Amino acid sequence: MVDGIFAIAMTLLVLGINPPRPSVAQAQAMLPGMVFGLIPQFFIFVAAFLIIASFWLSHHRQFHFVRTVDPRLLWINIILLISIVFIPFSTDVAGDYPDVRIAVLLFHINILIVGLLFVYHVYYISKSGHLCDPAADKNFLQLNLSRSLLIPGVAFMAAIVSFVIPFGSLLVYLVIPVIRYSIFTGRR
Amino acid sequence: MVDGIFAIAMTLLVLGINPPRPSVAQAQAMLPGMVFGLIPQFFIFVAAFLIIASFWLSHHRQFHFVRTVDPRLLWINIILLISIVFIPFSTDVAGDYPDVRIAVLLFHINILIVGLLFVYHVYYISKSGHLCDPAADKNFLQLNLSRSLLIPGVAFMAAIVSFVIPFGSLLVYLVIPVIRYSIFTGRR
Amino acid sequence: MVDGIFAIAMTLLVLGINPPRPSVAQAQAMLPGMVFGLIPQFFIFVAAFLIIASFWLSHHRQFHFVRTVDPRLLWINIILLISIVFIPFSTDVAGDYPDVRIAVLLFHINILIVGLLFVYHVYYISKSGHLCDPAADKNFLQLNLSRSLLIPGVAFMAAIVSFVIPFGSLLVYLVIPVIRYSIFTGRR
Amino acid sequence: MVDGIFAIAMTLLVLGINPPRPSVAQAQAMLPGMVFGLIPQFFIFVAAFLIIASFWLSHHRQFHFVRTVDPRLLWINIILLISIVFIPFSTDVAGDYPDVRIAVLLFHINILIVGLLFVYHVYYISKSGHLCDPAADKNFLQLNLSRSLLIPGVAFMAAIVSFVIPFGSLLVYLVIPVIRYSIFTGRR
Repeated sequence: MVDGIFAIAMTLLVLGINPPRPSVAQAQAMLPGMVFGLIPQFFIFVAAFLIIASFWLSHHRQFHFVRTVDPRLLWINIILLISIVFIPFSTDVAGDYPDVRIAVLLFHINILIVGLLFVYHVYYISKSGHLCDPAADKNFLQLNLSRSLLIPGVAFMAAIVSFVIPFGSLLVYLVIPVIRYSIFTGRR
Repeated sequence: MVDGIFAIAMTLLVLGINPPRPSVAQAQAMLPGMVFGLIPQFFIFVAAFLIIASFWLSHHRQFHFVRTVDPRLLWINIILLISIVFIPFSTDVAGDYPDVRIAVLLFHINILIVGLLFVYHVYYISKSGHLCDPAADKNFLQLNLSRSLLIPGVAFMAAIVSFVIPFGSLLVYLVIPVIRYSIFTGRR
Repeated sequence: MVDGIFAIAMTLLVLGINPPRPSVAQAQAMLPGMVFGLIPQFFIFVAAFLIIASFWLSHHRQFHFVRTVDPRLLWINIILLISIVFIPFSTDVAGDYPDVRIAVLLFHINILIVGLLFVYHVYYISKSGHLCDPAADKNFLQLNLSRSLLIPGVAFMAAIVSFVIPFGSLLVYLVIPVIRYSIFTGRR
Repeated sequence: MVDGIFAIAMTLLVLGINPPRPSVAQAQAMLPGMVFGLIPQFFIFVAAFLIIASFWLSHHRQFHFVRTVDPRLLWINIILLISIVFIPFSTDVAGDYPDVRIAVLLFHINILIVGLLFVYHVYYISKSGHLCDPAADKNFLQLNLSRSLLIPGVAFMAAIVSFVIPFGSLLVYLVIPVIRYSIFTGRR
């Protein structure tokens, strides 16, 4: 079910791309401008999609070593899913008002909360020996823990930047693929 | 498919958080107030999510012992799913009008019906020996049955409170984690 | 994926229950009438949910014997899924205008098309020996074929009734559980 | 999760069929015209559904031979999913304005991008021997690669036709089943 919720949240993001529709008579003249006006909405849609996708990838990588689930791990997951499900809403608001501080801040805080819950989730799994496969590679779990700090760190920076330039703060997420690529090529 | 419907119903809840959007020109001034005005909607979204999640958990726990399904169990499940699928609608209405009695009552009655169907579902499984794994722990099934009374009991109390203070009745659901936590620590 | 589409179509039905929302100031006075005014919409939502659920059950029952899929069976399934996915739309229109002939007729025709595609699907599986498990019970497949005629037959009758009394035609579907129950108790 | 996203994107297409609803008083007179006015929207809904379904079928056929996934294949898949998830939006816009060039062009470009990503996906799998089952039939992979060129080729032609007759360009997709049928009967 966890997979299903990730998949649905990722797909619902598209419902947020919903510009006001001109009447058919005006469409010929107005649509071209509107399609280009969608670029910020499209950018944040892609960013949110990639962020959820990378949470989902880490979730799989981490659960690979988990053999049993205790009530705490279950509830960490459920709280994590609530904040994942909230992302289509905050993405929609930020995409509609990319120049309004509180709108983009809502998005950054949503990503920050998901990210911090994720750090705790990874930390809880890696320190709970009784839940994991005894053959689990401790170094790999440690590496996942340090990797999981990346997204909340960037979201925190983006939240700070949003006080100076709201729209610019969305571009901060472009740092993620750059850093991730250098980690991948550096450590593997 | 049952899992899929739980997951989709949980994710669709977010579509109910849909405040009227100001024009871009007014957004700078109006959005901050609106974001804080979303707090009741957000509270009921989280409550509904947690309630569906805990139904889903009990559903799994109970089906763990089921080996075959008879037509009656199938139809209990389908009726249960109808009332689960209705939750995003009643949550949406209650979140939009948290101070209007009939709106919050619709939500309480929806939860009450799901809860009662669930009690019957758990009861039917625990008494139908021919559907269960012979090794199923009778005490565990009995414990699940008494646990399943919690949510409909709380929904019934909330429905009564809603006649006095509509919004306050939503807070009644906060009793659930408190009681559940004391059961967990007391019996396990 | 077939299961996923059934589950999503069943859950999206709830989005069709979308009455016009009064302002908060008017809600106290207007909501009670509106909640009761939802009864036809709710009735058709439940009917559509049960119809999709019973298609899904027959689909499972039938595929149980299928060992390989040929291109034709694949495309029958895809065309079937298109008409399943269309049900939330036709349900929404019929639920909004339960007294307008063309609106309820759209619903009946949708169900009729799904039903006829289903008859062909069941027929194609039962006559294609090379796709089925050799141990498949021919009588059971034959029984499924005659059972699959029930829903399109009722939809056809409902379409005729809709020319006399549009809303009444929706009630024709109440015949399904009655007939099905008597088949179940009569033949098993 | 990939399957889930395909299924949800296919089901969300139906939300795009959303004509303006007349009031109940006007419905009797206006609905018949509106139902027939939905034909272009319905045509593009079916076309988009079949295109996504055939991408999904090729995806399965191709992944059948894949034994391990490397980071590049993972990210090709994620980018592919983003463009799949975008289809319900571009279908919705093209269905609302079937006579406006930029609206139908948005749809054609969306299909073209999905198609080109798919060609690359198929190409990457077929040339990456270390990811595939050693027993994979090279000729079959080669055949899939040439087949995968069909949809982007048709989308490119449709984009060109849209500069002459916007609505007519949607009919270009009718070429796909014709060509596919002749391939099936010719090569198998």
